[in-house]
Amino acid sequence: MSFTQQNIIDVRNSIARYIVKTPVLRFDFIDRLCGCNVFFKCENFQHTGSFKYRAAINAIKNISPESNNKGVITHSSGNFAHALSKASKELNIPCHIVMPSNTPKFKKSSVQLYTNNIIECEPNLKAREVTTDRILNEKNLCFIHPSNNIEVILGNSTCAAELIEDYQNLDYVFSPIGGGGLIAGTSIAIDKFSDNCKVIGAEPSSVDDAYRSLISGKIETNKTTNTVADGLRTNLGSINFPIIQKYVQEILLVSEQEILDSLNIIINKLKIVVEPSSSVVLAALIKNKSRFKNKNIGLIMCGGNIDFDNLKF
Amino acid sequence: MSFTQQNIIDVRNSIARYIVKTPVLRFDFIDRLCGCNVFFKCENFQHTGSFKYRAAINAIKNISPESNNKGVITHSSGNFAHALSKASKELNIPCHIVMPSNTPKFKKSSVQLYTNNIIECEPNLKAREVTTDRILNEKNLCFIHPSNNIEVILGNSTCAAELIEDYQNLDYVFSPIGGGGLIAGTSIAIDKFSDNCKVIGAEPSSVDDAYRSLISGKIETNKTTNTVADGLRTNLGSINFPIIQKYVQEILLVSEQEILDSLNIIINKLKIVVEPSSSVVLAALIKNKSRFKNKNIGLIMCGGNIDFDNLKF
Repeated sequence: MSFTQQNIIDVRNSIARYIVKTPVLRFDFIDRLCGCNVFFKCENFQHTGSFKYRAAINAIKNISPESNNKGVITHSSGNFAHALSKASKELNIPCHIVMPSNTPKFKKSSVQLYTNNIIECEPNLKAREVTTDRILNEKNLCFIHPSNNIEVILGNSTCAAELIEDYQNLDYVFSPIGGGGLIAGTSIAIDKFSDNCKVIGAEPSSVDDAYRSLISGKIETNKTTNTVADGLRTNLGSINFPIIQKYVQEILLVSEQEILDSLNIIINKLKIVVEPSSSVVLAALIKNKSRFKNKNIGLIMCGGNIDFDNLKF
Repeated sequence: MSFTQQNIIDVRNSIARYIVKTPVLRFDFIDRLCGCNVFFKCENFQHTGSFKYRAAINAIKNISPESNNKGVITHSSGNFAHALSKASKELNIPCHIVMPSNTPKFKKSSVQLYTNNIIECEPNLKAREVTTDRILNEKNLCFIHPSNNIEVILGNSTCAAELIEDYQNLDYVFSPIGGGGLIAGTSIAIDKFSDNCKVIGAEPSSVDDAYRSLISGKIETNKTTNTVADGLRTNLGSINFPIIQKYVQEILLVSEQEILDSLNIIINKLKIVVEPSSSVVLAALIKNKSRFKNKNIGLIMCGGNIDFDNLKF
């Protein structure tokens, strides 16, 4: 799979009118704390509160004319369900979401704003896939995977493309890794639009499949997915992994406490609302700050959908 | 009391290296919701999480050389205590804070980061003033009132001056009213730097002293101060009031539920952390949106110091 600068420019032009060109914020406090210049790319301000909206719009714009009538389907309990349902409504495409029955109510409500086609399934990956396949075949729908999909990756790439366009002297961009779709898109954009900037992944130690995969050279899995960074519980995909192998410099691991500590800093000191999947990248920077002294660092705040009632930090 | 454009320019130059030139954020969602173009001036991103830091720095820079050695004192349980203690430390001036004994622990902790001189008093205004006078006389300190003070007002004015400099076509700027120091500074800046922009005050109905004062032409008081907007519980001051009479177009009242609803929107939809004193202005705009259709509206988000553990919304 190879990409060109023009691929990303085309996607940016195609989705520009639907998405927010999110702001980049700076905080003296963080620059002093980390000893470097930090640029927060705020995808928490994106429609539906995460970068996933870029992916959802781009994926839907690229389905076949036949699927335009039938509609799309995905399985997700979180940000991609939210994003795909709103993007579908925006583009007048029917949308079906398969969701585990234990999905928190506030997440389900976000999706219900945009579609009535929510299909519940048992809360395990097998049930998700079986249920999705059944509905997909019954209704002849177009399946859009939340992360392991070329158009999703290209949609995601527009975030880092905006960042590097505005801040061309970045030395590093940190991206979280869950399914790998965001960091794959990020690393492609940085490769195409910068000569020197490197991409660093940040991953919870407790779901370190990407870290281990880069070492072993094949996709590793997680025995448990017990992390507070709920957006990062998924496994690497077959399309994302080779991109990550090619373009990502390194993956840094952080503990659950480090994720919560950095979340606390971002919400209570910086005063922006992010979810733990975002604070993972700040945690990785703080933990390794001696290595990044005086550098220009972009941090991708991937999303801001947090349930304050159920999170103590 | 009269002010010139040059007064504000001088203050801006004097405090520039100490403060954050806070960003102005825009949100499609809000523009659509309100039917106008809304510009959020984010003082929640200011040092110590509120506009008060501008006032504190400017006030301390203007004390007498004698007071430089003796130090300053104020009575405040909230943002001004936080701001003055940090500003004093920054400028190497001793700082004393008189605080009601029922001040929430998280607010006290914020001040303790910067000064050990915290004096507790009974939780009423009389005790605050008596205690402050006693310490002030014992130690020969310089008293800085949190809102009713010329240098405080001029420090506050720099926030709206930044906003109108960057967005000269604003039709209205909305500011909350508590003690009146922020809206006094805001309205002076808008008068000096804009020909057409008008300043609107937003005040909780439950502490509507400013609203009633503008009608009666004299400073009215509040029987109770029972509002969730804890930064707006104080009364108008004698220095602020004539400025407000002269420069503020109108005061709009909002209910407690309207304040909480707009707080919910700002935190959960816009993904920035503000305190209820900030959401008052959005509540006033939403409530009166038909009057402001297609206008360019600046909203001053005065601060972001919120205790998530103790606020349900």
